[in-house]
Amino acid sequence: MRNFTSVHDVDDVTALVNLALELKQDPLKYANIGRNKTLGLIFFNPSLRTRLSTQKAAHNLTLRVMDMNVGQDSWNLEIRDNVVMDGDTSEHIKEAAAVIGQYCDIIGIRSFPSLNDKDTDYKEEVIQKFITYSGVPVVSLESATRHPLQSLADLITINELKKTARPKVVLTWAAHPKALPQAVPNSFAEWMNHPDANVDLVITHPEGYELDPKFTQGAKITYNQNEALEGADFVYAKNWSSYKYYGNIISKDKSWMISPEKMKLTNQAKFMHCLPVRRNVIVSDAVIDSPDSVVIQQAGNRVWSAQAVLKKILEDNF
Amino acid sequence: MRNFTSVHDVDDVTALVNLALELKQDPLKYANIGRNKTLGLIFFNPSLRTRLSTQKAAHNLTLRVMDMNVGQDSWNLEIRDNVVMDGDTSEHIKEAAAVIGQYCDIIGIRSFPSLNDKDTDYKEEVIQKFITYSGVPVVSLESATRHPLQSLADLITINELKKTARPKVVLTWAAHPKALPQAVPNSFAEWMNHPDANVDLVITHPEGYELDPKFTQGAKITYNQNEALEGADFVYAKNWSSYKYYGNIISKDKSWMISPEKMKLTNQAKFMHCLPVRRNVIVSDAVIDSPDSVVIQQAGNRVWSAQAVLKKILEDNF
Amino acid sequence: MRNFTSVHDVDDVTALVNLALELKQDPLKYANIGRNKTLGLIFFNPSLRTRLSTQKAAHNLTLRVMDMNVGQDSWNLEIRDNVVMDGDTSEHIKEAAAVIGQYCDIIGIRSFPSLNDKDTDYKEEVIQKFITYSGVPVVSLESATRHPLQSLADLITINELKKTARPKVVLTWAAHPKALPQAVPNSFAEWMNHPDANVDLVITHPEGYELDPKFTQGAKITYNQNEALEGADFVYAKNWSSYKYYGNIISKDKSWMISPEKMKLTNQAKFMHCLPVRRNVIVSDAVIDSPDSVVIQQAGNRVWSAQAVLKKILEDNF
Repeated sequence: MRNFTSVHDVDDVTALVNLALELKQDPLKYANIGRNKTLGLIFFNPSLRTRLSTQKAAHNLTLRVMDMNVGQDSWNLEIRDNVVMDGDTSEHIKEAAAVIGQYCDIIGIRSFPSLNDKDTDYKEEVIQKFITYSGVPVVSLESATRHPLQSLADLITINELKKTARPKVVLTWAAHPKALPQAVPNSFAEWMNHPDANVDLVITHPEGYELDPKFTQGAKITYNQNEALEGADFVYAKNWSSYKYYGNIISKDKSWMISPEKMKLTNQAKFMHCLPVRRNVIVSDAVIDSPDSVVIQQAGNRVWSAQAVLKKILEDNF
Repeated sequence: MRNFTSVHDVDDVTALVNLALELKQDPLKYANIGRNKTLGLIFFNPSLRTRLSTQKAAHNLTLRVMDMNVGQDSWNLEIRDNVVMDGDTSEHIKEAAAVIGQYCDIIGIRSFPSLNDKDTDYKEEVIQKFITYSGVPVVSLESATRHPLQSLADLITINELKKTARPKVVLTWAAHPKALPQAVPNSFAEWMNHPDANVDLVITHPEGYELDPKFTQGAKITYNQNEALEGADFVYAKNWSSYKYYGNIISKDKSWMISPEKMKLTNQAKFMHCLPVRRNVIVSDAVIDSPDSVVIQQAGNRVWSAQAVLKKILEDNF
Repeated sequence: MRNFTSVHDVDDVTALVNLALELKQDPLKYANIGRNKTLGLIFFNPSLRTRLSTQKAAHNLTLRVMDMNVGQDSWNLEIRDNVVMDGDTSEHIKEAAAVIGQYCDIIGIRSFPSLNDKDTDYKEEVIQKFITYSGVPVVSLESATRHPLQSLADLITINELKKTARPKVVLTWAAHPKALPQAVPNSFAEWMNHPDANVDLVITHPEGYELDPKFTQGAKITYNQNEALEGADFVYAKNWSSYKYYGNIISKDKSWMISPEKMKLTNQAKFMHCLPVRRNVIVSDAVIDSPDSVVIQQAGNRVWSAQAVLKKILEDNF
């Protein structure tokens, strides 16, 4: 594996999940593989879980970490080609990526979408240009349209907790006061639809919240949340803004919040969320504080997700 | 010792001071105790001394450090329970603490008071909720009402410099343009009043600046600064806002500034301050630049204070 | 070498360049020299290359790194002496430097000029006061008037690429929308004029952009860019604000941009820039994307520049 930007970069998803579970049992098993190598973590946007879990994963592999917040620690970058840079960007991504590639053996990049321009966001220019110009392997720490380290952690969690060979997994939209990216649901759908995931994926949301079919193809999609929840083994709640009416909030319907009543429709499902989550907006206190909530275990698995990916990249490229 | 939030968490204050002095002589004596462990430093507020000295202490114990500025590197946290999170907080402290506890073996937290609501501040919700929800030992890097790593460094400094078995230590208020927390004076009083400190503590300030008696009980309190300074072996200057008229500045009396004239009243006292200090506001240049000023030694002792605490926590919990 | 603030701190420039080239071949050759030592990187201003390359250099020497952004991670510092600090600075540089010196074995400082007051900027108060008060060796990460780690990397790059014993090196001004410091051109001129550099330096800029003669003495200076470029082996483009009309932009003449036509005047010169660079303002895409552009190699050499300096300081002071 050269880069890690989506499930399509992974040769063998089952093997990657198994590696993560092996690392969870024995975090220091491959403690020498990163020695004298450097991982650069470049954040265009805030991060808590990704920042800390990826560092922890790197430490377990003896990888040195350098992290930087773009536009705060350094300057704003120009992404567009062929422009006269007489505005408020001081450096072009071509140079920034190539220079960071001189200092780092692997680069992790977080770059959220604008939510203004669908075409630009879905072209994934920031991460793609880092791949093109840095000359080193690149790991997505959440890009404009995908969050694969999260999805891998989600799949690890489902594997740990599933009670049947092929569980029913429901991804459900819920209302939120701000317009959020589609990256987490896109990526979750893409991973759950992979044959190795071996789950039945149902996606439910109000009309107009359809995700890009490129990600959801293979899943059952319904506007009826109650129907979707019936018999679910896992309920993954998440808000996203509309893909169709790009970046807009087209529903604030509070009835989509996951409550104990909704959870009663399920097969005593485990409750999942990528975090951060707004309590009593996306999910009620009673659900997230219940024994069936697995959000902390899920966040904990971010370490093993990142560590498996970094181990594979180190092995395959150095 | 599980957590370090006040002097009450310490079984044996004398032993902790002696450990710090031992580490100052031989910083790498316990260099293996933190190997493959991770310390998370979470800052809700700015920090220079604490940020750097705690990292240095961790390095000396081979502890990995991950630091994060909340609200800058990541998002704003909700502290209150049972709220509908539809405002400007994106994550609840319950999840944040539990998640950080997944990635760190020990967590250090800095969280200043609002100075608006005494009850909320003195409940110490941020650090207490990290203790409740993180599942790992928690170290105060200055909380709303206490700064115990500073107080321990202060006690170490007094032990290094005292010329009599039981020195006279004066904590004196001085005017300041901004309203400051009571954390440093609260904590200093609490530590100096501990039997192991073995000092005579006198606290002096204008009327209305009385600290919470919970911290000062046992000390002599006077509104007459000159009387307090007479025969002092140590003068610890510090501003704080009123506890009684909570968070307010009720005096801007510049005569409380520590000047050479004031120091002449003392028994050639050592001048102490926790830093940062405003020159010619809290203390005149002539005093802080004199050979009797020990503020840099005091700041240097922050390393051994933090290292002793981290060593003890590592020893007792892992 | 005690401090590294300019070429004048270096005993033997040729030896330092050779050490850098040796480290480039074998980065871990002196991997033990920094063990259990700590480098503090203190940024008063943003940084990408310096932040990352200096960390990487430190890692290669097993130096621990602590970095801090002043005014963001901590508070604003007072630089002036003898002032009543009742304004918006919370700590004096005297204490800050001395305290950081308690925690770090070497301190790197980045501090840009105000561009308002020439005398203050050219006194270099920030870095000089860190040298005076910290008690430990200090490395400039770009000060108000010089950027010696960059200049050393520039000289390394010229040594790697020169095709004649004494190449012609042209430093050319180009227009820019913002007023920039003179630090890079000052420092570049000073290093290129050093006998060990062994180059013919020509500096070209519009009238009124003369640099402080202290730095340029020995170089040929001309207002005719085309004449300067004739037969050049290296073209180093850079904007700076006027030294004479201090901190002002007195020309926005776009004809100074380095274009393929300009490069045709040269002896197939290598194109250099310290980065960040504004494309199609300082240099056209066609030039910076051409095989003769060496800006990435030049940025890569920042690692070996910093590592050579740190190695020398460690060797000479500990």
